Amino acid sequence: MTEEIERKFLVEGNGWRGLASAVYFCQGYLSTIKERTVRVRVCDTQAWLTIKSTNQGITRTEFEYSIPVEDAQHMLRYMVEQPVIEKYRYHIRLNNLVWEVDEFLGANQGLIVAEVELSHANQQIVLPDWIGQEVSDDPRYYNSNLVSLPFTLW
Amino acid sequence: MTEEIERKFLVEGNGWRGLASAVYFCQGYLSTIKERTVRVRVCDTQAWLTIKSTNQGITRTEFEYSIPVEDAQHMLRYMVEQPVIEKYRYHIRLNNLVWEVDEFLGANQGLIVAEVELSHANQQIVLPDWIGQEVSDDPRYYNSNLVSLPFTLW
Repeated sequence: MTEEIERKFLVEGNGWRGLASAVYFCQGYLSTIKERTVRVRVCDTQAWLTIKSTNQGITRTEFEYSIPVEDAQHMLRYMVEQPVIEKYRYHIRLNNLVWEVDEFLGANQGLIVAEVELSHANQQIVLPDWIGQEVSDDPRYYNSNLVSLPFTLW
Repeated sequence: MTEEIERKFLVEGNGWRGLASAVYFCQGYLSTIKERTVRVRVCDTQAWLTIKSTNQGITRTEFEYSIPVEDAQHMLRYMVEQPVIEKYRYHIRLNNLVWEVDEFLGANQGLIVAEVELSHANQQIVLPDWIGQEVSDDPRYYNSNLVSLPFTLW
């Protein structure tokens, strides 16, 4: 079990490009109810099942287990809610923080967000100049909600 | 991934008692929607996360992963739908079949069902005399549905 404290922002401009290489993620949800999510994610030759609790502010409890890629592929194809979420992720290290920039594809094409994990909820952070509006509290940007209402339909 | 072909019956009388010893199971659901269930189960010092697809007749696809007991205990306490399902399970071997008799406790006290796993959907089986009405097709008896509508409330 880990506790995840994250803030999420929109990304503005292209100043972040070139700071890291892209990794392709495909993920889907076995459950998207607001009390908890159950996510299946495939990245290259690895796959995980991840269970997250409800947000308490910007904090969530998370359990993550590695599973066989073939199992995950079957779940993504036949069992999860459609459409699946596809995105490129970029890990960008700046000022002792790791920013995860997600550039969405498919039904969420055009959406680019950046998440940063904090060690405590009130941690002060330096925002890079390509960071725009904070959307930590906006449930439309939860990946689980981008399944039922993808960005291209907003 | 395994494919599970099971038939389920009510149990009549006590002719099955004494044929196997009881093992205590505690389980709960992270998802109980009809398209798929995500179950957390603890039995003694072991725990599993199990994902099952919709029933296609008496057949379901199932994925099961061993997880740390402490993780499962946390999920059962804080994350699953309440109430949890508690039951004693008895594995009874008869005529080359394994019958799983579930004697429910708590909110489902009074309910006793027997399940048998088949190698194909049309397999002929010998029913022990303590086997009563078949309930394979009755969704009220799905463990996942015994959470929202426990047997004592029927």
